Parts: sequence; structure tokens; C-alpha cells
Amino acid sequence: MVEVSVLLVKPLYAGNVGSVARVMANFGFKDLILVNSCKLGKKANDMAVHAKPILKNAKKCKSFETAIKNFDLIVGTTAESTNKDDYFLRIAIRPEELREKLQDVKGKIAIVFGPEDIGLTNEELRRCDIAVNIPTSAEYKSMNLSHSVAIILYELGKMKEKTKFRLASKREKDLIVGTFSQIANSINYPRPAERRKIFNLMFTRILGRAQVTGREANTLIGVLKRIKKRLK
Amino acid sequence: MVEVSVLLVKPLYAGNVGSVARVMANFGFKDLILVNSCKLGKKANDMAVHAKPILKNAKKCKSFETAIKNFDLIVGTTAESTNKDDYFLRIAIRPEELREKLQDVKGKIAIVFGPEDIGLTNEELRRCDIAVNIPTSAEYKSMNLSHSVAIILYELGKMKEKTKFRLASKREKDLIVGTFSQIANSINYPRPAERRKIFNLMFTRILGRAQVTGREANTLIGVLKRIKKRLK
Repeated sequence: MVEVSVLLVKPLYAGNVGSVARVMANFGFKDLILVNSCKLGKKANDMAVHAKPILKNAKKCKSFETAIKNFDLIVGTTAESTNKDDYFLRIAIRPEELREKLQDVKGKIAIVFGPEDIGLTNEELRRCDIAVNIPTSAEYKSMNLSHSVAIILYELGKMKEKTKFRLASKREKDLIVGTFSQIANSINYPRPAERRKIFNLMFTRILGRAQVTGREANTLIGVLKRIKKRLK
Repeated sequence: MVEVSVLLVKPLYAGNVGSVARVMANFGFKDLILVNSCKLGKKANDMAVHAKPILKNAKKCKSFETAIKNFDLIVGTTAESTNKDDYFLRIAIRPEELREKLQDVKGKIAIVFGPEDIGLTNEELRRCDIAVNIPTSAEYKSMNLSHSVAIILYELGKMKEKTKFRLASKREKDLIVGTFSQIANSINYPRPAERRKIFNLMFTRILGRAQVTGREANTLIGVLKRIKKRLK
């Protein structure tokens, strides 16, 4: 598992720094590093809501060089994915590609975000191992700083997640479709009978696409069995 | 291709509404609907930056009912993915699952976000076809409103331009659930009668998650009407 730190270079607005802290807490990240930050104060605390400890424990650095010193991988963010002059500099991967790359590795990673107005300089981006770009509308590429952080951390947060509900088993789903099929036969509909095969397939697909849970399956089975019994 | 609208129910902070407009512009979405919004004014305009036209053109509604009337699919957002009491209500899919579901369909979709303090009510969630939840740290689930919007729109922005099926309309899905509900009443099951409300909700959600097409809906309606008739 990677250890991820968020590194803000010269953030200009305290509210944004607070919002960044909050979304870090939302996704379970704790380590914030500020390089030449604006004053934080009340506005930052207000926006951090329950993430004030992240602000309080943020490391403060005077230079980008010092800030990135102990990381294994430096990831720079950029609103421009590339243009002619700095082609190699700003060849950027997408957030989900970053996640795939980090998925199975170990190490200390810094995700670096530039100031709200101009972003990371070419010089700073040059010091990064990877550039990442959030794909946006060509008409309006400049995102709010905390929104960019939110999206990157949301993607990286997918590395940790696991699923929660028990999906209906094949047997349960077959029982639902089978019972519905018996009902269809008993009311002799859809007609002709061959169309019922298509109906069964359609119903199987609906259940599959819905990712029906075990509990939902049992409820449906109960109702369908009752209908079947009443139709006899 | 789906048409996506962002629907904010009772937003409390003008700054958040402005931030939502900005991130909508970032991802190329234009249609904002506000139900009983706070006053917008300068704070909203400041946060919208270059997305002021989205704020200006936002539709304002007095009730949730009116706001959702002309949509084919209503997607509710919730910070709680589920708990015992409201199991069916808050079985939520993840943003990327929502994107996969919307990828190949046509129709008008509303993504609904509740107020900053309490989120959508159970009653409002009940009116939604799908619930979606952004997976967060268990320790701090409550996200900034505009961060939630940013993440959902970022995921939907990944959709590519290709379309196949007409989604079942809200009217068609209501007819399916309504007919199934009449059948449940006529067989007096599930029992007690209150459980049928939960059953209806469960069935609504299955149809929503399955992204039932217009054609599938019509087939289902035909079969259910026939069952209903035969049970009389």
C-alpha cells in the first residue's frame, strides 16, 4: 500500500486549504504539506469542519525542494494536458491511470497541487515523476483547487475499497426467473409460447443488470411463489 | 447520450451553489435546478468564476415534485450507504457504477443532492430510482456539497459518446411498480400491508438499477396486467 501525502504549493485562499483538509479526511488521508501557504485562520478552520486536526498537523515548508525531499514518487497535477512548447513536460495521465499505477506498489507518494491562479510552474513540474490531469471540458479547464484534490483522492480512495452486499446467488436468480416463467405459462402469456423464452431471458438480464442482492431476491421469490399459488 | 441535470434541494450556502456551477462548467454540464435555494448573490457569483451563466439560467422550483417531473431517471445521492432500518432505501451504487449504467442509454437524468446539513430525506430518496453513494472513510462521511457534485460529474464526464437504448420513462416504470403493487394487494402479500411499501420501493430500485429499457418495460407491463386480470 502506498502512503499518500497532499502537497499544496503556495495556496492563496485559506478557505480552499480548509476544504482540502476536509476532503482528505473524507477519503481517509491525513498528511498535508503546505509550501509557502497563505495565512489559514478562521476561514480555513470553518471550511475544514471536522478536519481541523489535519490543518493543525500540516507540515509547513519554505521551499518545494525541502517539501518533496523524502518521497519516493512525486506526482504533479496540471490543468493543461499538453501543448507544443512543453510537450514532454505536460504529457499527463488521467487520475484513474494514476490509481492503476499505484495500486500494487509500496512507497511514499506526494500529490502536488499548484496555486489557484497559475498552477504548478514548468520548473516545479519538471521535478515531478508523473504529471496527472483531470479531463475537463475544453471550454473551462480551470478547476477549484479543492475540487481537483477531491477528485484525485476519490480515485485513489478506490484502491482501498471492498464491496458490501451479498449479491443474489445464481440459484436464487434462477428461482426468480423460473417461478416467473411458471406464472407466465399458467396465464398463457406472452403468446405464442416461444416468446416466453425471450421473456425469461429479458427478466434474467434485468436481474443481472440490477445486481440484485440476496435479500431482494428472497423478497421477490416470496411474492412470486405466492402469486403462483394463487393462480392455481 | 443521456442529458444530465444537477438538482440541488434546499442548498443553504450561496458559495456552494456557485462552486457547483463552476464544476458543472468544468465537466461540460449546463442544466442546474434549484429547489427552495438560499439567496445566491455575490458570494455565489464569486465562486462560480466563469460559470455565472449557469447560475443565471438555473431553474428555480418551489417543490421537489415539480422539479423532478420531466425526468426519466432520478438519481438520489446519499452519504449513508445503508443501515438496518432503511435497507432498501439506501442500497446505493457507486459513482462509477452509475456511469456504467448511463453509458449506453438515452434519456433525461436528474442527479439530486440534498441540503448541506442533513442531505436528502427518506421521503425524497423514496422518489429516486437509484441511490448513489460516494465511498468515503467511515470516520468522516459528510462531504462538502460541491465536492460531491464534482466527483459525480467527474465520473459521468468519463462517458463516451455512444448511445443505444431508450430508457423506460418514469411513467412506464411507475406503471410497472403500480401494477405489481395492485397484485401484491390482491394476494394480500407481503404481510403486514406496510411491508408492501418497502416491497414497492425495492422493486422501484431494482428497475432503476437495471436501467430497464422502454421495450422491456412494455413487456413487463403486459405480463403484469395479465396477471392482475387473472387474479380478479
